[in-house]
Amino acid sequence: MRFVPAIKDIKTYEAGKPIELVVRDYGVDPKDVIKLASNENPYGTPQPVVEALKGSAHNAFRYPDDSMFELKSSLGAKFGVGEKNIIIGSGSDQVIEIAIRAKCGVSSKILTSKTTFAMYEIYAKHVGAEVVKTASSEHKIEEFKEAIKKDKFDIIFLCLPNNPLGECLDRDDVYSFLEEVDEDTLVVVDGAYQEYAKRKDSKKSIDPKDLIERFKNTIYLGTFSKAYGLGGMRVGYGIGREEIIEVFYKLRAPFNITTLSLVAASVALKCEEFVDFSVARCFEEMERYEKFANDLGFEFIESYTNFITYKFDNIDSSDFAQWLLQRGVIVRNLASYGVNGIRVTIGKSGENDSFFKKAKEYLELQDSI
Amino acid sequence: MRFVPAIKDIKTYEAGKPIELVVRDYGVDPKDVIKLASNENPYGTPQPVVEALKGSAHNAFRYPDDSMFELKSSLGAKFGVGEKNIIIGSGSDQVIEIAIRAKCGVSSKILTSKTTFAMYEIYAKHVGAEVVKTASSEHKIEEFKEAIKKDKFDIIFLCLPNNPLGECLDRDDVYSFLEEVDEDTLVVVDGAYQEYAKRKDSKKSIDPKDLIERFKNTIYLGTFSKAYGLGGMRVGYGIGREEIIEVFYKLRAPFNITTLSLVAASVALKCEEFVDFSVARCFEEMERYEKFANDLGFEFIESYTNFITYKFDNIDSSDFAQWLLQRGVIVRNLASYGVNGIRVTIGKSGENDSFFKKAKEYLELQDSI
Repeated sequence: MRFVPAIKDIKTYEAGKPIELVVRDYGVDPKDVIKLASNENPYGTPQPVVEALKGSAHNAFRYPDDSMFELKSSLGAKFGVGEKNIIIGSGSDQVIEIAIRAKCGVSSKILTSKTTFAMYEIYAKHVGAEVVKTASSEHKIEEFKEAIKKDKFDIIFLCLPNNPLGECLDRDDVYSFLEEVDEDTLVVVDGAYQEYAKRKDSKKSIDPKDLIERFKNTIYLGTFSKAYGLGGMRVGYGIGREEIIEVFYKLRAPFNITTLSLVAASVALKCEEFVDFSVARCFEEMERYEKFANDLGFEFIESYTNFITYKFDNIDSSDFAQWLLQRGVIVRNLASYGVNGIRVTIGKSGENDSFFKKAKEYLELQDSI
Repeated sequence: MRFVPAIKDIKTYEAGKPIELVVRDYGVDPKDVIKLASNENPYGTPQPVVEALKGSAHNAFRYPDDSMFELKSSLGAKFGVGEKNIIIGSGSDQVIEIAIRAKCGVSSKILTSKTTFAMYEIYAKHVGAEVVKTASSEHKIEEFKEAIKKDKFDIIFLCLPNNPLGECLDRDDVYSFLEEVDEDTLVVVDGAYQEYAKRKDSKKSIDPKDLIERFKNTIYLGTFSKAYGLGGMRVGYGIGREEIIEVFYKLRAPFNITTLSLVAASVALKCEEFVDFSVARCFEEMERYEKFANDLGFEFIESYTNFITYKFDNIDSSDFAQWLLQRGVIVRNLASYGVNGIRVTIGKSGENDSFFKKAKEYLELQDSI
């Protein structure tokens, strides 16, 4: 059977491996598996959300309120924007997909940094668009400025802070760049980890309302999957001018958020203390990861997220990640991103102990070979 | 800002109105609202699913197992097909969307019956494909046979039984048609309501394994949203040959099913007694709806689903549906489908009593005008 031509070039996303797989494939006891691969919040689901989910379980048979009235009201109040400025996606991923399908076709161009969230490129391939990347792996605002002088783009993705590397541009640099961008170019500011970045350094903080008021061609993306502890519920959002959101809505599938996910996200929005606690603990534990790298003599990237990226010279990241996996420690190998490194989610203290112990074992083995 | 041209023609899906809206807009007490608009299972969420959801609520922070190992194993065992023959969608809707994006572009043609599930046409418009419709509202196999003699189609949708009308082609007629279809045409057999149809009349039953073994260019769609009582969890599936499923997978977004939805669907699959009970009660109650139409003197379509469609001559369906809505009875007006009629989900006995009472009130008002 013949299919549309663009499909043959599509790569599929390599997800962090689930705990079930490690149990099945390597016979590790589930309680010994440490998952530091998908940047979930290690402090779990906020307790008020757990209670709300239990109280709503019997409603699983009811289609969701597709107007998402309650969640949009709460988000609108939090950010000081109207409900017509908000679109809810099945993860912010889905808003990325919609943005690309709204703006791009086979003759379109998209600009990203060299090493950034894989889904930008995967969704671009779905519609046959070309992805142009800056020379540096990390976001360098000068390289973005040069790129738009040479070429016209339909979409520019800025991942602030950047997944999977962890670095983050300053807001002032982002704004100075946005001044120069063509008004017909959509700029997607992906703030999936903003809850972490803005608490670590206010210079990194991007306020969605301020952003879209200053620059009418921007969309801000946020998610409940990270700091809010709802990775499994698939809820993200886009905030933009009404005229953009209205178009995006035409491409949104009805009922894209489950009934229980709407409940979970609405309740999670009220759990600011949980977010504060999670972020504070994250950066305390991250210092141990930085020290570990310094002690063992390899490079890390200063991170504004809930993960840290280690880069290696004499170690093969694929071998290292696989060795850890077989021993129940799941981290994210960055080989598929063209980086000889690993991305490790900052876990709870005990989980991090396990990582350091196992990682040291592997590194000592390498030294002895 | 400019967007891709196809977007301007896209209509958005008109969903059944949620209970919250009726409460908000018309001040009806939530306990007095009767929702018979979205073909949910009125017997609710199966109890073992409720328990499983409560037990898994704390896992909402974990990304789902994106291999969907457990659910695919269970579905594979149920239907006697391999895991590589199955794709799971966020509702069977999402598999429809993927099928269209895999096969169709701006020069593509899609064949459907005149009045059928609205999403076929909406997703077709997303990619700019043309939708050709048979002359009759209901599926007439001779009209489908004539259409493929005159034209070449990329996809043909057969909705068996048909939503929103309720009629269902016999399997033998479907198979005789499939013998004549070009091998490069994908035929989507949408079996969202098959659990109802096959229990009412075995001649309507389509077995996914038999279907895809006989006809390599077919895909069978099923859902957990109807008989399995999981409308809010957004889980459907497609069953097809490996070479088709493999291509579909390239267009599937990662993590398209929530962690709790995977749990719910896996448990629901074991609730066959619940399904049997729900379907038996549905058809018992449906007799009352048939009698009501006969008594009041309007037409209905014999239904193989959990809803019934009434067609009117002297009543305006939009006025009728709106009148009921304001009194807390939500039904589906079919005006947007070009049908002067309403689609009513067969509810529980008491819910149906309320519908009959209110509907009679309206009809008597019309008579007295």
